[in-house]
Amino acid sequence: MRIAVDAMGGDHAPEVVIQGTAEALGQYPYMDIVLVGHLDIITPMLKKHGIAHHPRLRLVHAEQTVAMDEPSTAAIRSKKNSSITVCADLVHRGEADAVVSAGHTGAAVAATNFKMKLLPGVDRAGIATIMPSTKGRFILIDAGANIDCKPIHLAQFAIMGEMFAKCSLNIDKPRVGLLSVGEEDVKGNDLTKGTFKMLSGMPINFIGNVEGKLLYEKVADVVVCDGFVGNLVIKSSESLAKALMTWLRQAFTKNTFRQAGAILAKNAFKELKEICDYEEYGGAPLLGVNGICIIGHGSSSPKAIKNAIRVAGEFIKFRINDHITARIAECGVAVNK
Amino acid sequence: MRIAVDAMGGDHAPEVVIQGTAEALGQYPYMDIVLVGHLDIITPMLKKHGIAHHPRLRLVHAEQTVAMDEPSTAAIRSKKNSSITVCADLVHRGEADAVVSAGHTGAAVAATNFKMKLLPGVDRAGIATIMPSTKGRFILIDAGANIDCKPIHLAQFAIMGEMFAKCSLNIDKPRVGLLSVGEEDVKGNDLTKGTFKMLSGMPINFIGNVEGKLLYEKVADVVVCDGFVGNLVIKSSESLAKALMTWLRQAFTKNTFRQAGAILAKNAFKELKEICDYEEYGGAPLLGVNGICIIGHGSSSPKAIKNAIRVAGEFIKFRINDHITARIAECGVAVNK
Repeated sequence: MRIAVDAMGGDHAPEVVIQGTAEALGQYPYMDIVLVGHLDIITPMLKKHGIAHHPRLRLVHAEQTVAMDEPSTAAIRSKKNSSITVCADLVHRGEADAVVSAGHTGAAVAATNFKMKLLPGVDRAGIATIMPSTKGRFILIDAGANIDCKPIHLAQFAIMGEMFAKCSLNIDKPRVGLLSVGEEDVKGNDLTKGTFKMLSGMPINFIGNVEGKLLYEKVADVVVCDGFVGNLVIKSSESLAKALMTWLRQAFTKNTFRQAGAILAKNAFKELKEICDYEEYGGAPLLGVNGICIIGHGSSSPKAIKNAIRVAGEFIKFRINDHITARIAECGVAVNK
Repeated sequence: MRIAVDAMGGDHAPEVVIQGTAEALGQYPYMDIVLVGHLDIITPMLKKHGIAHHPRLRLVHAEQTVAMDEPSTAAIRSKKNSSITVCADLVHRGEADAVVSAGHTGAAVAATNFKMKLLPGVDRAGIATIMPSTKGRFILIDAGANIDCKPIHLAQFAIMGEMFAKCSLNIDKPRVGLLSVGEEDVKGNDLTKGTFKMLSGMPINFIGNVEGKLLYEKVADVVVCDGFVGNLVIKSSESLAKALMTWLRQAFTKNTFRQAGAILAKNAFKELKEICDYEEYGGAPLLGVNGICIIGHGSSSPKAIKNAIRVAGEFIKFRINDHITARIAECGVAVNK
């Protein structure tokens, strides 16, 4: 299996991406990696990380880079030779099986949609993320790729999420829930009410609406929503977790007793941080595109990059896209274009 | 000023409501309270809390109660003599200036809309909540009263939130932000894009979109969204805070060192809890109805009830509804029906 890695993507690229790639090459002997970026910049760094002449590493030059704060559509239109577009093109041309990028999410979505196209029957690709809960991990899809959605899109996301849960969380019959404002089927907006009907008629383990108040108690293995709501729920949760850590730090440094308490319990804080640590999860897949695409957090560490590469490998091995295509047809929600 | 208090509303009603009412009567000598509920149930409790013959307390009988888990519209239609409907009717008939209820939110919204009607020019009433952030409190509106909204509704919520911030947070020119998935005006769904244009043309301190990732850093004093998104963001935040407390407790009880640390720092945990404590905030006002309506959390304590009564009094004194009506006309977003 061959993974195209966007060397230029991420807040700390290319350094951390190259380090993560080196770690992946060391740990996953069954993988070939194609590192894509500006060769003048990345070549000198390869030596430092001991992969200058690695037998399973191929280098591909990309003249341009999409900056983290560029408007995505404009970037993809004007930068036809950006590292993320070159990665997607490698998959399109059959020279790689997957793309891994910790760069601009919108650009990754646009480039892979444009170059790789969608799987047969799929109308929109969705971003799936693994989330922590008090009872283990669950999947939320769509995390932000699609802002205005129709029920058919959420129905397809349900299937993509189901397959992701089977592949990565090892759940045989994932419970699928619909994020909404009340338990009953009549609760929700026009989109969720339409989606509720559609999901109820599909041969999946649909458990009904999931309310926000139960989100982090894992009442479902897969939680489906549109990308507007998904983005806001995930990002505001990140913001709250950050705020709580700030308050915790302030509270624990107020006097000597508390400081002593914090020292005695310092591993407790470490554990708390680990629970919320996206680095372990290995990035968020964009599901529905014709090829594998894993999007890492912008602030990905080398470990996060390495894990994203690992997940790309697991998806290839599991043949997740074949399963999604077949299941979408089986559930009667394929879209013919 | 006369406050109608729904004695039967809340998870621990009527006991905690009566206790909160007793505390309010003791602390706010400028207030008359009308306690509404089943007199057979509440009368015996009044003595216990020392307000059986209080000169500023009036009792009004209500034969029925809306249970916390009843479907709201059905409850309001079938229970014409429920405590919340009787409260709203007292305001409608000029026998009270405000309603306070910690009962069923949907029923409170339905009953006050039905009995009290809306303020002139207002098309929809919205629930505003005070939220904590690392830089002080801010207001989020709508927290769940309106699931499918149009830009005009969000524009009106912006003004209601502005007046709430002036009255309760003492902010002279509140910064108003629109909850969305990106900073630029082109980012968002159809609703937020339409709302962005409308807010930009109004004489308010509109600062543009507020992203989820900055929500708990108080980049705006008032954050506007539709009730579907507002409910999910607030409820999932509550769920996450609860989960983080669970993880914190688990981490701090794992061994003796950590337990000792927790004991040394026990006031730190108390402080953290206080920051997130809704009891202090005094409930969430339903703004836009013709009269004051404060909705308390279902699990309100006596202190939370007392604070909700206090906020109702502040709103009456501030004449918040006169300000909202005038400002909606001034901003050119009044709706003529």
